[in-house]
Amino acid sequence: MSNSFGNIFRITTFGESHGAAVGGVIDGMPAGIEIDEAFVQQELDRRRPGQSALTTARKEGDRVEFLSGIFEERSTGCPIGFIVRNENQHSSDYDNMRDVFRPSHADYTYQTKYGLRDHRGGGRSSARETISRVVGGALAKLALRQLGVQIVAYTEQVGAISVGHDYDLFDFEEIERNPVRCPVAEKAAEMAKKIAAVRSEGNTIGGVIACVVKGCPVGLGEPVFGKLHAALGGAMLSINAAKGFEYGEGFSGIEMTGREQNDVFYNNDGVIATRTNHSGGIQGGISNGQDIYFRVLFKPVATLLMEQQTVDVFGNETVLKARGRHDPCVLPRAVPIVEAMAAMTLLDYYLLSKTNHL
Amino acid sequence: MSNSFGNIFRITTFGESHGAAVGGVIDGMPAGIEIDEAFVQQELDRRRPGQSALTTARKEGDRVEFLSGIFEERSTGCPIGFIVRNENQHSSDYDNMRDVFRPSHADYTYQTKYGLRDHRGGGRSSARETISRVVGGALAKLALRQLGVQIVAYTEQVGAISVGHDYDLFDFEEIERNPVRCPVAEKAAEMAKKIAAVRSEGNTIGGVIACVVKGCPVGLGEPVFGKLHAALGGAMLSINAAKGFEYGEGFSGIEMTGREQNDVFYNNDGVIATRTNHSGGIQGGISNGQDIYFRVLFKPVATLLMEQQTVDVFGNETVLKARGRHDPCVLPRAVPIVEAMAAMTLLDYYLLSKTNHL
Amino acid sequence: MSNSFGNIFRITTFGESHGAAVGGVIDGMPAGIEIDEAFVQQELDRRRPGQSALTTARKEGDRVEFLSGIFEERSTGCPIGFIVRNENQHSSDYDNMRDVFRPSHADYTYQTKYGLRDHRGGGRSSARETISRVVGGALAKLALRQLGVQIVAYTEQVGAISVGHDYDLFDFEEIERNPVRCPVAEKAAEMAKKIAAVRSEGNTIGGVIACVVKGCPVGLGEPVFGKLHAALGGAMLSINAAKGFEYGEGFSGIEMTGREQNDVFYNNDGVIATRTNHSGGIQGGISNGQDIYFRVLFKPVATLLMEQQTVDVFGNETVLKARGRHDPCVLPRAVPIVEAMAAMTLLDYYLLSKTNHL
Amino acid sequence: MSNSFGNIFRITTFGESHGAAVGGVIDGMPAGIEIDEAFVQQELDRRRPGQSALTTARKEGDRVEFLSGIFEERSTGCPIGFIVRNENQHSSDYDNMRDVFRPSHADYTYQTKYGLRDHRGGGRSSARETISRVVGGALAKLALRQLGVQIVAYTEQVGAISVGHDYDLFDFEEIERNPVRCPVAEKAAEMAKKIAAVRSEGNTIGGVIACVVKGCPVGLGEPVFGKLHAALGGAMLSINAAKGFEYGEGFSGIEMTGREQNDVFYNNDGVIATRTNHSGGIQGGISNGQDIYFRVLFKPVATLLMEQQTVDVFGNETVLKARGRHDPCVLPRAVPIVEAMAAMTLLDYYLLSKTNHL
Repeated sequence: MSNSFGNIFRITTFGESHGAAVGGVIDGMPAGIEIDEAFVQQELDRRRPGQSALTTARKEGDRVEFLSGIFEERSTGCPIGFIVRNENQHSSDYDNMRDVFRPSHADYTYQTKYGLRDHRGGGRSSARETISRVVGGALAKLALRQLGVQIVAYTEQVGAISVGHDYDLFDFEEIERNPVRCPVAEKAAEMAKKIAAVRSEGNTIGGVIACVVKGCPVGLGEPVFGKLHAALGGAMLSINAAKGFEYGEGFSGIEMTGREQNDVFYNNDGVIATRTNHSGGIQGGISNGQDIYFRVLFKPVATLLMEQQTVDVFGNETVLKARGRHDPCVLPRAVPIVEAMAAMTLLDYYLLSKTNHL
Repeated sequence: MSNSFGNIFRITTFGESHGAAVGGVIDGMPAGIEIDEAFVQQELDRRRPGQSALTTARKEGDRVEFLSGIFEERSTGCPIGFIVRNENQHSSDYDNMRDVFRPSHADYTYQTKYGLRDHRGGGRSSARETISRVVGGALAKLALRQLGVQIVAYTEQVGAISVGHDYDLFDFEEIERNPVRCPVAEKAAEMAKKIAAVRSEGNTIGGVIACVVKGCPVGLGEPVFGKLHAALGGAMLSINAAKGFEYGEGFSGIEMTGREQNDVFYNNDGVIATRTNHSGGIQGGISNGQDIYFRVLFKPVATLLMEQQTVDVFGNETVLKARGRHDPCVLPRAVPIVEAMAAMTLLDYYLLSKTNHL
Repeated sequence: MSNSFGNIFRITTFGESHGAAVGGVIDGMPAGIEIDEAFVQQELDRRRPGQSALTTARKEGDRVEFLSGIFEERSTGCPIGFIVRNENQHSSDYDNMRDVFRPSHADYTYQTKYGLRDHRGGGRSSARETISRVVGGALAKLALRQLGVQIVAYTEQVGAISVGHDYDLFDFEEIERNPVRCPVAEKAAEMAKKIAAVRSEGNTIGGVIACVVKGCPVGLGEPVFGKLHAALGGAMLSINAAKGFEYGEGFSGIEMTGREQNDVFYNNDGVIATRTNHSGGIQGGISNGQDIYFRVLFKPVATLLMEQQTVDVFGNETVLKARGRHDPCVLPRAVPIVEAMAAMTLLDYYLLSKTNHL
Repeated sequence: MSNSFGNIFRITTFGESHGAAVGGVIDGMPAGIEIDEAFVQQELDRRRPGQSALTTARKEGDRVEFLSGIFEERSTGCPIGFIVRNENQHSSDYDNMRDVFRPSHADYTYQTKYGLRDHRGGGRSSARETISRVVGGALAKLALRQLGVQIVAYTEQVGAISVGHDYDLFDFEEIERNPVRCPVAEKAAEMAKKIAAVRSEGNTIGGVIACVVKGCPVGLGEPVFGKLHAALGGAMLSINAAKGFEYGEGFSGIEMTGREQNDVFYNNDGVIATRTNHSGGIQGGISNGQDIYFRVLFKPVATLLMEQQTVDVFGNETVLKARGRHDPCVLPRAVPIVEAMAAMTLLDYYLLSKTNHL
């Protein structure tokens, strides 16, 4: 069951890095939505390796093929199956990892849990798995667009370089103009420089992706275990390399008292609104109509192009040096994945909220 | 479905603050586990209000009554129903909130989502709901104990006062010796002073609870959406007032590179282990046998004993001042709740892992 | 998870025959529904033992106590917890069954599966478990009533005595006028006589309950595994002693060809309808607006008031004679249970169908 | 969610009759099982059209392509994605059905439920969907084989021609020797003649498939809503054209009393067994180690090669005559589908039963 995500709008994914294909099934797509396949491909292209000098040099075409659930360009309410063929895989790059556990990767835990593993390219634990999420997220966005919901994610911090939390100051148009996907051009340049520097050492770096949702209706989120931020948090933490999640004021607000964090209500021309938004658009686990904003922490990529001590499957100590083409920083390519998980979560909870009343 | 938590070991909870009772059903408790009811009650007592000068003065006896699933002091494999009667509720304290939305509470969102709400004591959004979690967690602990799994949570930070992340330095025996549940006595005293200070102003303060799991078997966690940290994160974020989650190095490790964060494997007398544990005991979403550690951020309690601007259900602007007995800081009483959610998650994933093989 | 039923409208039940109470939690009850508690009790009274000379002489008051989810007589959208205390249990009647497996009961299978069991009154496998279903069904009926959906079940056959399938000929008002709950008075008398005859021998008899649903909207049922009849069939087969399920023409139509079974469409004053209803109101797994009708087969009660060969938990062959107060025929009291399961299924699928579109 | 089946071993399917492909994802396949792809293909070949003069003349190669979850011929514990391309589809055969509702098909209900439908070949409601079930069932069989569980289904009855319930008299080797898949050669010949006769009129006929499971361990089935027969019944009723399900004695035992239906226990050389098996191998919803047997009723195929009255989507009355290549009787090809659903259900419940204990 763990390869499925969602309650009503539910994606099930499959696929290893060096297998025949990755793909998935989306069940619960509302019927009658126009499916703009070009938009889906465009979202995939944002995730694709080889986009810029900052990302891995691997070329992956990553063309999505839809197999069902769409008729005359509209969703039919039936499950949407899709595949993306794996191409240009250099499986031999991984020959030396067949019996060796790469540090801070999933090799050891998969091997111990299952008793065997597909070692090529990380197998199921590879970030190629997120291709299916982006496809699902793109379809969810097509539905959410009709509801007026907009989702924007961006790189907020790389290492020590941060644009800060105050997203109202940013021009979101800037995000796609630079390869870091940072909304502040100068900071983007700094970040790019930092990434290039760690890459040159065979090293890697992490950071934070922020996400802002505008136009979310009031009432999404199902107490008590289905609180909207718990669903979003679980979704984000399921992305490869994610190590933390916070919403609203977050960890940096830890010194603020209740008086400073409470969001006072007022009547905004007939609409109940809050004067501040420390709550990040969610109160009691339910969206309150204000912007939803949250942040996701990503660790540095574990694959280093330098020698590391490790052990093999027989327990022998050995030295490993990765070959191949790898990202020095996962952030730029993770931006569309964060958006995709947010989109699927919000559409799912929107559909759930329809069942709150007869 | 949102009042259920877990896949195999699954708790379903019910109950409002000022209704007849809170309670729940635990489905999937393994058969044959000795049920030490005194231990369950003891865990509940750790959550109970009125324990110390730092918590609310409300007296809630909170006696659990088990109704099924236990026969001759052992679990039978059948669902365990239980209730805790609500007593000593002062519903009239809430009369003035019937039509008024308390800032940063769930009043407005519940009212808008459902069209009506039980306003007394926060209704379903009250922290009394967590009583059921503590009962479920206590039962899960009884099972985990047989597996050698130990779970310890404590208050790590209140406002700006922190003991730091290095839990190896702490004496866990200290935790239950002070009312803050902090493992460092001097820091506990500082925290207590801080809490008393905000209380005296009718104000509130938040902080961080850390949790350490020792003895967790390798192999818990179900990729890809059921990664162990995603499950733990979703669980923790479902607790009232939680606003953030991080595991392993967390946000404070953001400046560390891959070389600094990677955990090198070595052969520790025949057992594969890591020399460091920046991963927090989880790699690729699966436990690796090292200590699991994570942190949960809690915001300041939203109920202030001071005047606040707000609006009522008709949209009229008004001023609210809470009456009643409230916590100035949720941390001390949230410690057993964090442990409970961790215990239920780990037992659930342990049982799931049994299905990985024939 | 197996003590929960339903997707959106979901009941979770607990309780053994001779434990403290049976009860449950209903999650997903739509908000704002008027809760007529007297109606719920009335439904329970239809299930209660001791109603007539035909049923067991046990007196069970079976008063339901609601604990949450209802505020000022309306559902709040929060989970509805409830309990029914067990009273008047004669546990000593079962002392001789502690170590003995009653033939065709669940004693042997529970003991082997779980390694222990509560032997008193059948424990969890007792039909007292269906009390919770009737409570859930009554709440579902209150919601369905607003949609114009009516559900009527009745005893169609006892042993060889049958009223036949043609329900249009029956006066449904007759059902509650006789203790067999059969819509044809003369047949009811015959059935009552048959039941009395088998009872006098310490023997038991089975039969068929039919159920008719009128006013069901078109579009309920979720292909492919959630076909409406599959959901109804699974629901009915989960009732104690159920051994078969058929809908529409059923087994007795096995000799009819396609030409004879097909339901031709016509335009009935602007509404598309079928001239016949061999399909039983469901086509392709989805309700088509015609009456839904199905039948459930119940086996004879396994508890006989006569000596039977058996073995004990140690494998010794022995002779058992049940004591106590038992039903000679489960049908009359199972009628409200069939209705309850139908009501919960239909409400659940109605709510699911709301998510088919944005 | 309705395109998924199972709890732990869970299949999710997709695909329309005339779309690009049908396929699915199997999540929860235990790790380390040898995957004999030739066996899977062989199972698919049993379901394939065009096998004999009795089935449709459509030629469908139905070659399965596995895309993930298998490494060096063993299951890895990761999801197994697969597709079967649609070929040789004559979509133009369906042009005249675009706006017309075929009687007793899913056209009208899909159109009304979703607001649109893929009309070609029945779209999602086509029996081609069962291809994915057969693939899933074949994988489940590979796992069950290791547990010593054998599943055999066969055609028991076509129209009025039946071999009776007493499966001990049959030679199961005969089943695959005749095109009807009936274990009694003379009866098979009669059935074949009957099918040929209805086909020559453009008519169709239904019947019953029986299924016998040998070697099932004691303890499968999860009370109360997850009773094994309820799971099997729901599974079988989800197959296209299924209209009834019974297990053990079934409807034909309706006149038997409790004394006649009870299965007396005895000690069979140290193993507790029953002298008779009216219970069909399931007691209290849990397998008891005896043979499981059940029967599934299938209605006549709804597609007739003769003129039928109907209406179109605009409500106009019209006359329809199907073109194309259709089965006159679904039974022979449904035999492997019944086995597949049984296999997936049993493996799922076997895995669930592993979680009953620590």
